[in-house]
Amino acid sequence: MDEISLFEERSKEFYKDYLPHVSIDCVVFGFHSNTLKVLLIRMKGQEHWGLPGGYVGKDEHIDDAAIRILKSRTGAEKVFLEQFKAFGNTGRSEKDLSYLPESIWFRQRFISVGYYALVDYEQIIPVVDDISTACEWKSVHELPAMMMDHRQIYEAALENMRFQLNYKPIGYNLLPEEFTMPDLQKLYETILGKPLSRSNFQRKMLAYDIFIKHDKERKGGAHRSPILYSFDQVKYQAALKTGLKEAW
Amino acid sequence: MDEISLFEERSKEFYKDYLPHVSIDCVVFGFHSNTLKVLLIRMKGQEHWGLPGGYVGKDEHIDDAAIRILKSRTGAEKVFLEQFKAFGNTGRSEKDLSYLPESIWFRQRFISVGYYALVDYEQIIPVVDDISTACEWKSVHELPAMMMDHRQIYEAALENMRFQLNYKPIGYNLLPEEFTMPDLQKLYETILGKPLSRSNFQRKMLAYDIFIKHDKERKGGAHRSPILYSFDQVKYQAALKTGLKEAW
Repeated sequence: MDEISLFEERSKEFYKDYLPHVSIDCVVFGFHSNTLKVLLIRMKGQEHWGLPGGYVGKDEHIDDAAIRILKSRTGAEKVFLEQFKAFGNTGRSEKDLSYLPESIWFRQRFISVGYYALVDYEQIIPVVDDISTACEWKSVHELPAMMMDHRQIYEAALENMRFQLNYKPIGYNLLPEEFTMPDLQKLYETILGKPLSRSNFQRKMLAYDIFIKHDKERKGGAHRSPILYSFDQVKYQAALKTGLKEAW
Repeated sequence: MDEISLFEERSKEFYKDYLPHVSIDCVVFGFHSNTLKVLLIRMKGQEHWGLPGGYVGKDEHIDDAAIRILKSRTGAEKVFLEQFKAFGNTGRSEKDLSYLPESIWFRQRFISVGYYALVDYEQIIPVVDDISTACEWKSVHELPAMMMDHRQIYEAALENMRFQLNYKPIGYNLLPEEFTMPDLQKLYETILGKPLSRSNFQRKMLAYDIFIKHDKERKGGAHRSPILYSFDQVKYQAALKTGLKEAW
């Protein structure tokens, strides 16, 4: 089936199942071994890459739509997933999708609600759906050209995630059960894209009081092994809700 | 004309002019003389108060729609206006508006994009439009019962605004051209709803380096008049864009 016939067929379902004019775009950041990547797809008929996205069921909460879309692309559940901004400029998709007949779902104007997720990319299997030709992790340092306003959505997500690091704990699901402060620092440095002062980082992080300190030390030949920590789940979840601190 | 006939008439225009399923809700905070208020409307046929809102023109950027809605309600332009969250749970309006015929615009499911604004309420003239019976400032300490999920949207806006105080400068348009640090502190305390330490506040605020310090002192009989400041517009605008500081 050619791509236009396929889109026409899927459009019928989309018009039946989904709310028109509203879409979801997911910026899925993957972290593993001190590398930050982002999950991109290539839609059939498109030269450029895009963010995995989808639509909102007529009787579905937008947050549930984001969770469903993320799960369908990655199998991931219970990850850090956060709404960060709605994108509603005009002409978001008109240029890139103008070759499609007007009756096709994708030709509508969409207000897109952006969510970002943070996952361990080694534990995720990217899924290529029937309207895409690819779904792959790309390094944030070598991003390909992106369709529509997806580059701008990605940049806003990155900025928002980096900002959130200042007041929400990040790390659960991305680090092993027990980790050292240097492990955690590496995670923060990778996300922020810059080095941090070790003593400052440890002082500040420990002041958040969201860790359980373990007496045993990591096995190894080093004469002074670093101390192991794990997240105190009760305090960690509370900090996710209320924030780590209040500046004023 | 009864209210249902009126809504039926307006519905025709709304369906023609606006994007369906997407709305804008504005949480307009008003500050004056150390009091914080919020602008509420009462829609015709509704017992409870609601947030002033509106819809997005078929060819209008959502941010422009928010600016237009705010201006039409208050005459205010060039105020601090910030998108903070999209609200997309199901059943947001069904209960409160179920008495209306299904053909009426308001009976749709709407995903609402929330914006908050901060204005000097003495400089604003609330406008009652033709589908409302009232548009008034209400003290945040004595809020009336609110329709739909508007109380929840208000709470989210307040939380977000308070949080933003930590990294964006607030005060321009809300304080006189020249003001003292105690004036600015009062503004912050009113928005935060709690007292702040004077020495901490001044030290932190001045460290942001967004002020011009004036040599002359405020006229008055006091033997030691407080120092007058004004905002350095270039630095203030830059801080609005990039944030006051980076914690990590």
